[in-house]
Amino acid sequence: MTDIWYNETLYPAWGQRFRVVRELARARSEFQDIAIFESETHGRVMTLDGIVQITEGDEFVYQEMLAHVPILAHGDAKSVLIIGAGDGGVLRRVLMHKTVTKAVMVEIDGEVIRLSKEFLPSIGGGAWDDPRAEVIVGDGIDYVKRAPDASFDVIIVDSTDPIGVGEVLFTDDFYENCARILTARGLIVNQCGVPFMQADELRDTSRRRKRFFPHVTAYVTAVPTYVGGYMTLGWAGKDPSLTAHTAATIEARAREAGILGTTGYWSPEIHAAAFHLPPYIAKHLP
Amino acid sequence: MTDIWYNETLYPAWGQRFRVVRELARARSEFQDIAIFESETHGRVMTLDGIVQITEGDEFVYQEMLAHVPILAHGDAKSVLIIGAGDGGVLRRVLMHKTVTKAVMVEIDGEVIRLSKEFLPSIGGGAWDDPRAEVIVGDGIDYVKRAPDASFDVIIVDSTDPIGVGEVLFTDDFYENCARILTARGLIVNQCGVPFMQADELRDTSRRRKRFFPHVTAYVTAVPTYVGGYMTLGWAGKDPSLTAHTAATIEARAREAGILGTTGYWSPEIHAAAFHLPPYIAKHLP
Repeated sequence: MTDIWYNETLYPAWGQRFRVVRELARARSEFQDIAIFESETHGRVMTLDGIVQITEGDEFVYQEMLAHVPILAHGDAKSVLIIGAGDGGVLRRVLMHKTVTKAVMVEIDGEVIRLSKEFLPSIGGGAWDDPRAEVIVGDGIDYVKRAPDASFDVIIVDSTDPIGVGEVLFTDDFYENCARILTARGLIVNQCGVPFMQADELRDTSRRRKRFFPHVTAYVTAVPTYVGGYMTLGWAGKDPSLTAHTAATIEARAREAGILGTTGYWSPEIHAAAFHLPPYIAKHLP
Repeated sequence: MTDIWYNETLYPAWGQRFRVVRELARARSEFQDIAIFESETHGRVMTLDGIVQITEGDEFVYQEMLAHVPILAHGDAKSVLIIGAGDGGVLRRVLMHKTVTKAVMVEIDGEVIRLSKEFLPSIGGGAWDDPRAEVIVGDGIDYVKRAPDASFDVIIVDSTDPIGVGEVLFTDDFYENCARILTARGLIVNQCGVPFMQADELRDTSRRRKRFFPHVTAYVTAVPTYVGGYMTLGWAGKDPSLTAHTAATIEARAREAGILGTTGYWSPEIHAAAFHLPPYIAKHLP
């Protein structure tokens, strides 16, 4: 058998590699190179510009923490805006919450959605057809500029790193509009890289968020294929009490929302614990 | 420039790779292949039989959690037995505790110690010459067989995975003797692999520990170069209250012991949080 390996190129001198069973798709969209292959170890894997975005095997770790934590911390989130996340996994997790009545998803690259629906159907599942979902192929920057004041309780940004097409999702202009369109206790979370390798990303984007939000912090999740130890998810909100809930409070909300017992990584205790940052990460926060 | 890459061979179809600046040592000891190279990203890296054991860049994550957690959870650990850990990093962390009066380290492979002292001197630091340390090149199985009853408060096993030379450190015979040589509130911790990739390791060795200890659990740490999400550290003890301390209790003990403020990953909050396991890991415990 010929060995074919996929070498991730996120970092020039260190990274992960997968033995490839077969290539499923390779496309050049208007925005980026998209590839999907079947791995021996992690099921199907999607990469954008050479960087692993999602694998069937471990997507639950990232998606559960990116979706359930902000919604349950808020406690009364009815309206959720998702930016990016073209694979549909965040949308599916958001819509698992019975309390959510509207989820708008804005993904810039329609080709990511199309290929995800074709080759990674289990990630989005039935979420694409949920009547509470509005899926827009468009520019997230533009969307938040035009959205009315106080129209969302939670904003979830599932973007690539702040290079290439994702860069604008980390700008002053973007965060300023997010602050404006969030409700009084509203908050935004976004992926902030793996600080052991990308500390600048957490530090610089946290400083930006701090200009427009009184409460800026981060929480952690250990995603198997975002290699390099903890990944941080950035948090910016108006109410600091939201990140200090006990596991008991979160558990009660999760039961109500229909989330309890459905998860592989998230739990009420993991939720509460995730806001405690190791010193090597905490030092990068403003 | 010629690109030379080191591909870890722990898993046959997935893993990490390092660009190598230069090779520093390569030896075949009586027990295993040892290699040390300088990486671009993680400082010096030591591998045994093709598997990354330690890097200068992230060793603090693993060593702090393997050493500080059991000692501070015990609360009055004077006598500590370390098995394996030939690089000296656990020994150094153990001896940071002013409360510890004796640390015996038993490493089977003298060549690992010799090469670590030569090429990774900062890992062990001054611990090798500490008067409280007794470093034995010998067989850990044999050592625990001969050690007197109730002679250690904490046993720390920093072994390779349960294959090859490390395999005997996961047997009934080994755990039975550990239980015997531990004091009344004594406990043993050992590395139990990365459950996302090696769930069997946590499941099977936890079951074995359960035969000889009333309280068996595990705690987690996100080690950048033990790729695959959380690594678990197995815990077996006689007193279940030791894993339920609040961060405040642990903080007071750490202050007393001289640990507070010295760490990059460990903190009192991380200590307390680490015993909360994600469901995908918890399900493998007995």
